[in-house]
Amino acid sequence: MESRISIITLGVQDLEQSYQFYHQGLGFPTTWKPEQGIIFFQTRGVRLALYPSEKLAEDVDPNFPKERSRFSGITLAHNTRTKTEVDEILACAQKAGGKIEKPAQIAHWGGYSGYFSDLDGHLWEVAWAESWEFNDDGSLVV
Amino acid sequence: MESRISIITLGVQDLEQSYQFYHQGLGFPTTWKPEQGIIFFQTRGVRLALYPSEKLAEDVDPNFPKERSRFSGITLAHNTRTKTEVDEILACAQKAGGKIEKPAQIAHWGGYSGYFSDLDGHLWEVAWAESWEFNDDGSLVV
Repeated sequence: MESRISIITLGVQDLEQSYQFYHQGLGFPTTWKPEQGIIFFQTRGVRLALYPSEKLAEDVDPNFPKERSRFSGITLAHNTRTKTEVDEILACAQKAGGKIEKPAQIAHWGGYSGYFSDLDGHLWEVAWAESWEFNDDGSLVV
Repeated sequence: MESRISIITLGVQDLEQSYQFYHQGLGFPTTWKPEQGIIFFQTRGVRLALYPSEKLAEDVDPNFPKERSRFSGITLAHNTRTKTEVDEILACAQKAGGKIEKPAQIAHWGGYSGYFSDLDGHLWEVAWAESWEFNDDGSLVV
């Protein structure tokens, strides 16, 4: 198996509102429209998709439980090239209707980091550290 | 905000066992070891990380609820270049200790797709479709 994730799909309650949040609010580009039933964003590397939460559970199995706890056990991270971007992106997410779960602060590992959740509670960490290096495509040097 | 996800972190109950699952079982490369408390894999584009589930909730906020339902509301997809790879990867995941949630089958959208869950129930779709195109870095043309 190639060590590669192609798509992250977030289950959402309201596809139209979540489309607005990510497209207008955060500025994620896409040519897809909510009428098409699913949205694919032109993210770099891994693709981000939005799909109605109930349908996503049904796609796994018609009997798969659809209830979700507040904590999904998964976080998405957006790592920035500058420290000021962390504050700017958290402010942008809040303005777009997201919730600040943790204001930006010095993290125990030495970086500068905060969390917001989207309209469905999906958790995004926005973080910066002086030591990080980026490849030309924006991916992190690990 | 650049439309880019840097890292996906999966909360896991047992870092050593999950490391074995992804590293030995699925063949994801890494130089990290469980003793370091977190594992980063050298995935293409987006980075995949494993981190103890309770600590991941605490990283959001010390009071963030740690309980997780079976459905996270998030799926990760691995899109293959050939149809036979879908069966091979599902078999590999099962052999590594994963659970087949949906055997590979013709999907309603015309592709060939199945689901497995990892040791903590994180859902992976393995899918192929004739119409998909891949960039040189393995990312999907959207």
